[in-house]
Amino acid sequence: MNNTSLQSAIQYAHDHRDRFRAEFEDLLRIPSISMDAAHQADIEHCADVLVAEMSRIGLENCRVIATRGHPVVYGEWLHAGDNKPTILLYAHYDVQPIARPDLWDSPPFEPTMRDGKLYARGCVDDKCSVWGNLKAFEAMLAANGALPVNVKVFFEAEEELGSPNVQPFVVANKDLLNADTLLLSDGPFVPEQPVIGYTVRGTVMAEVTVHGPPHDLHSGRYGGAVQNPLHVVANIIASLHDTSGRVQIAGFYDDVRPLTDEERALLDEMWQTVGASLEAAAGVEHFWGQAMGSFAERTTALPTLDVNGLWGGHSGDGIQSIIPSSAGFKVTIRIVADQNPHKVGELFKQHVLSFADETVTIAVNLLDVSWPFTMAADGAPIEALQRAFEATLGRRAMLLRHGGALPIGGMFQHELGIPMTMLGFGAGDNSHAPNEYIAVDNWHLAIATAIHFYHHLADTMMNVGNTS
Amino acid sequence: MNNTSLQSAIQYAHDHRDRFRAEFEDLLRIPSISMDAAHQADIEHCADVLVAEMSRIGLENCRVIATRGHPVVYGEWLHAGDNKPTILLYAHYDVQPIARPDLWDSPPFEPTMRDGKLYARGCVDDKCSVWGNLKAFEAMLAANGALPVNVKVFFEAEEELGSPNVQPFVVANKDLLNADTLLLSDGPFVPEQPVIGYTVRGTVMAEVTVHGPPHDLHSGRYGGAVQNPLHVVANIIASLHDTSGRVQIAGFYDDVRPLTDEERALLDEMWQTVGASLEAAAGVEHFWGQAMGSFAERTTALPTLDVNGLWGGHSGDGIQSIIPSSAGFKVTIRIVADQNPHKVGELFKQHVLSFADETVTIAVNLLDVSWPFTMAADGAPIEALQRAFEATLGRRAMLLRHGGALPIGGMFQHELGIPMTMLGFGAGDNSHAPNEYIAVDNWHLAIATAIHFYHHLADTMMNVGNTS
Repeated sequence: MNNTSLQSAIQYAHDHRDRFRAEFEDLLRIPSISMDAAHQADIEHCADVLVAEMSRIGLENCRVIATRGHPVVYGEWLHAGDNKPTILLYAHYDVQPIARPDLWDSPPFEPTMRDGKLYARGCVDDKCSVWGNLKAFEAMLAANGALPVNVKVFFEAEEELGSPNVQPFVVANKDLLNADTLLLSDGPFVPEQPVIGYTVRGTVMAEVTVHGPPHDLHSGRYGGAVQNPLHVVANIIASLHDTSGRVQIAGFYDDVRPLTDEERALLDEMWQTVGASLEAAAGVEHFWGQAMGSFAERTTALPTLDVNGLWGGHSGDGIQSIIPSSAGFKVTIRIVADQNPHKVGELFKQHVLSFADETVTIAVNLLDVSWPFTMAADGAPIEALQRAFEATLGRRAMLLRHGGALPIGGMFQHELGIPMTMLGFGAGDNSHAPNEYIAVDNWHLAIATAIHFYHHLADTMMNVGNTS
Repeated sequence: MNNTSLQSAIQYAHDHRDRFRAEFEDLLRIPSISMDAAHQADIEHCADVLVAEMSRIGLENCRVIATRGHPVVYGEWLHAGDNKPTILLYAHYDVQPIARPDLWDSPPFEPTMRDGKLYARGCVDDKCSVWGNLKAFEAMLAANGALPVNVKVFFEAEEELGSPNVQPFVVANKDLLNADTLLLSDGPFVPEQPVIGYTVRGTVMAEVTVHGPPHDLHSGRYGGAVQNPLHVVANIIASLHDTSGRVQIAGFYDDVRPLTDEERALLDEMWQTVGASLEAAAGVEHFWGQAMGSFAERTTALPTLDVNGLWGGHSGDGIQSIIPSSAGFKVTIRIVADQNPHKVGELFKQHVLSFADETVTIAVNLLDVSWPFTMAADGAPIEALQRAFEATLGRRAMLLRHGGALPIGGMFQHELGIPMTMLGFGAGDNSHAPNEYIAVDNWHLAIATAIHFYHHLADTMMNVGNTS
């Protein structure tokens, strides 16, 4: 690491902090709401603004690229040298809609400072990361004429829609996006307790429908003589777990990667920090499934299956004495490395379909899946980020295993097969709510952290030779 | 049986058929809708009209009696002699509301004749029976100055509400209502295929709620560590039957009265007549539970249990990855003689509550129950009715075991402990629908059948000595 160039870039960012914030506010004035077709022009305008800024600060080949949905933005700087790694940066420039404008204390697209906080839609999710990374690049390029690593920038505008077109785009543009590592830049930045999610579970979601008689039947006339789809639904769900909590689908655990001793130690450490509050937040006196492992292990390192809803027959007031013609349920399966969501979905489907017989037909609709991902906790990208946190915050981040999903992360890891880490710039709150805000001083701290990270990455990560 | 007095009464009814119909139309003009408080005065007016008519034709002690709800009407004629049986007549003078007045071809409370059919709300359910029985009594009293049996008349006005106040009234007035047999006069009159329901199942209805965490939890964060109420609901329902269809609640079948050979023969005979159409109406290719007995036996002679609806979590579009805080289901249990609905309800409740543990609490709400009832197929009241059908229709009725419930019948049999039979005057259709109608000629035939029935009852039924 060139300490002089690092300090020069940090100094540049510090000297231009007011301008950085003013530009950020300009970006926040663009209502790039991806869910609302009325804002299509705003999305396109926002993409143009980003490309112009990327070119201005010295990135190259900057352009808007059409997809089947909203456009993505691409730019690159690949002059760090063959012996330096290439990092792919991901962030998104679309924002949540304004469901309740009346609940905002200031207009969501008129950025307003109050008590050191900047209020605006998208300031914390995720334009802070979009603009913050560009400002880190600007600081390094302006101060030193170069970046410490090769960089590819990839911004999308459909994250709030579930990123439906990113995976096809990535698959179709693997050469363009190929890199040695990925930085997923979305999420919170908490100086008091920095965290790095290094493991995220994947998901398989499915809907099951059991079809019985062609129309509802009177249970007084046909009860006991016609199979009741509600009973079949119950039989299926009851078959999914044993009393210990173990999922009973054949082959369900086959591809589960066991925890290493090191991962188990990290998990214990994490649980000592977050376990008590997580358990308290559940509001539950007695937990379940202890025979399968510790709470932390069950919710982050093992696959689980939960029915999320069921339906059938009359559920309103009173009783309607019917055998309904159909019934169903919805389920989310959480999977871990090295499970394949498509394979697990198929195992689930076959298990459920085995309940079909001459009295009922069963339909299993496998919905969107997401891949799990896991990174080496001591790998180079995470170590670079840890050193950055040490430099700017005086502490290393806690390594988190997430129980939930981060579909975009799993997709990138699955499609590109490269290590990744996460650095969000979201030093605020209310990301999907009224009065979204970011603490501006901490945003500047996140920019400094990013500058440190890119510099450290040049040292910790060897070029593995697959840049294009 | 005094054949002369019978023929005199039949002749009287025939001679006055036009007046009978005109009076019936007057009754139908009264909108005695029990569900609508706006018609309270109409209910009371209708009761007064009935009492006046009962007094006019020669019944005694005729009066309106207040209940906690709509009033009942009572009258009696007890001069047939101690050696003659006393029969309690039940019918109801309230009618269904008019949900869709626009679908009526003529105003529902302006009785209108078209093609031999009289259209009016309540004509078939159940004012035809109220007025028809009174006209039978009038014919006998006017022609002969006496009735062949002792008679107590009991009309209520809350049948369309589920008769909530009849059971308390009966319990509080057992001396007043005490009789040797009961005629339940409500239901269809079908000259082409007369039927007598001689066995009806009872019901136990219940709602079950499983309470887990105090609020919905994210299944990515807590799945596998917090018991899922949806899974518990499924476990409970799945435990209720084995694969043969046998209910698994301990003691469930203990009090079931086995079919006698004679009852089984009647059941087979009934099934030869109605089985094919009942099976076809289900629209089902393959039936269920055959190991428990024949279709007819399972649906009329054995208790059954069906879940009628379930709820919990998110059942709308898409998936919400939650562990819901609660879930539940509704169930109808059909019981047969000699099961006690309260006992069966308690067995169900204990079975379900056994699934409660430290992770979930369970609430079982036992709703209204109804008693099963069964009559001796060859008993005196049924035989009297069969002879009446032979006289007026030239055929005996088919004896039906009903799979559904007739709560008022089960209640009377349970509270009064007397044999009963059923004779409806409803020679029409659309009883709860627009354009309710009755075929007037067949209504007159039903009146003649009633006259025959009361005369035959005097012969077939010995006074068992418990009249008051």
